[in-house]
Amino acid sequence: MIVVKVGGSAGIDYDAVCADLAARWKAGERLILVHGGSGETNRVAEALGHPPRFVTSPSGYTSRFTDRETLEIFEMVYCGKINKGIVERLQRLGVNAVGLSGLDGRIFEGRHKDSVRAVENGKTRVLRGDHTGTVERVNTDLIELLLGAGYLPVLTPPASSYEGVAINVDGDRAAAALAVALKAEALLLLSNVPGLLRTYPDESSLIRQIPANDVETYLEFAQDRMKKKVLGAAEAVAGGVQRVIFGDARAGQPITAALSGAGTVVS
Amino acid sequence: MIVVKVGGSAGIDYDAVCADLAARWKAGERLILVHGGSGETNRVAEALGHPPRFVTSPSGYTSRFTDRETLEIFEMVYCGKINKGIVERLQRLGVNAVGLSGLDGRIFEGRHKDSVRAVENGKTRVLRGDHTGTVERVNTDLIELLLGAGYLPVLTPPASSYEGVAINVDGDRAAAALAVALKAEALLLLSNVPGLLRTYPDESSLIRQIPANDVETYLEFAQDRMKKKVLGAAEAVAGGVQRVIFGDARAGQPITAALSGAGTVVS
Repeated sequence: MIVVKVGGSAGIDYDAVCADLAARWKAGERLILVHGGSGETNRVAEALGHPPRFVTSPSGYTSRFTDRETLEIFEMVYCGKINKGIVERLQRLGVNAVGLSGLDGRIFEGRHKDSVRAVENGKTRVLRGDHTGTVERVNTDLIELLLGAGYLPVLTPPASSYEGVAINVDGDRAAAALAVALKAEALLLLSNVPGLLRTYPDESSLIRQIPANDVETYLEFAQDRMKKKVLGAAEAVAGGVQRVIFGDARAGQPITAALSGAGTVVS
Repeated sequence: MIVVKVGGSAGIDYDAVCADLAARWKAGERLILVHGGSGETNRVAEALGHPPRFVTSPSGYTSRFTDRETLEIFEMVYCGKINKGIVERLQRLGVNAVGLSGLDGRIFEGRHKDSVRAVENGKTRVLRGDHTGTVERVNTDLIELLLGAGYLPVLTPPASSYEGVAINVDGDRAAAALAVALKAEALLLLSNVPGLLRTYPDESSLIRQIPANDVETYLEFAQDRMKKKVLGAAEAVAGGVQRVIFGDARAGQPITAALSGAGTVVS
């Protein structure tokens, strides 16, 4: 089993990802796709007059502040436009894909964090009304039910809180939790860079290998959203996933390239 | 098995529908929910600067002209905001719902009509680039797989063409095809009116009973979107569904009321 997470930033070639995925699926490989949609969510939120708000935690992580209106825009883009766009691509390629959010069948479940500590102008404030959380449980029964019947699951945030409330969760860490729960051989975190770069955005500074017992040391090289990927990789490796690969989803055969060792390999 | 279709027009009380659905589901009844999202799609399309375009066929049916951009907005609202909003409500009520579009697992499949004949200013024109169709096949295997494992399916257009292209299909007729395919005992078509009205919008002119062998005669009383419901009812009855009920989803216990004979009963 291979879990492929593809990001939602500018430059991602979903056609290339789906073509590669379909070819491997038809050759008999078992895969699950998890996707993001952050860039498009920002564009739609701006267009709808409810621009995104990002907050930085005291420990330096940036995340989207997700009030109820933002959550609905988030669902429109992630679960509507992006998820169904990917399912349609796969259906056209002859793969019987099924697109689900973490709410559906409580595939991704976790605690609802209603408030977030945010650093603004050097001061730490507490913001309430946030719909976020972290995936703590994965409903592998539903995923295995679908895989067993020949369907390729295409999964996306949000997740469900234990009370059934929709919560925005990080897609990379959700994919890591999924890979651990399914005892996947590999987790691929594909985005619009070649992998983890020692001096971002210099692509020639690609870090090719990270020892599994030293992932957190590499956090210092990670910018912005790459931090969550490194954190997800650390969690996946700690949970028993043998290989985590940061790969490039901008062209070519993103999955095949990553599995061949392009990008940054954590093992 | 009961198939409940709830519309997407102003005034629909999704909380009431979900509470009623959850109570019946927990009492052991098997139900499937199909929903629309037309009103909200119009609002979002306006806000995004791509206002809806409706066309009237030579035979007098009004439908949404669905170009690629409209299809993506349609998916955002139907598969994102509305579908996940319903799944979240059901999850909060302790029902393990799974929301899927007709694209997912090709639950709803039909022919893609790329062009539509439209009457504009008294002249009939052919418009191309339409993404519409009619449901001709239902993947009951996937639905039964989910029901058998204890999940309540929450279904929505679009459907998949035979080539895997997303197509906008009428939700009422999709629900009718589903009810026929599943050999449902009853099909409930719930909207923001009490049922079929002899003189729309006079609610005291409710038609209480339509004989199953005479559904099409009643088409003359149907306005706008109600025409598709009457057509769906005719198709369901012809396909062996014993009762089709047009009911009110604006308050109370919409499913229980309809099953008790409120609204217009076709049997």
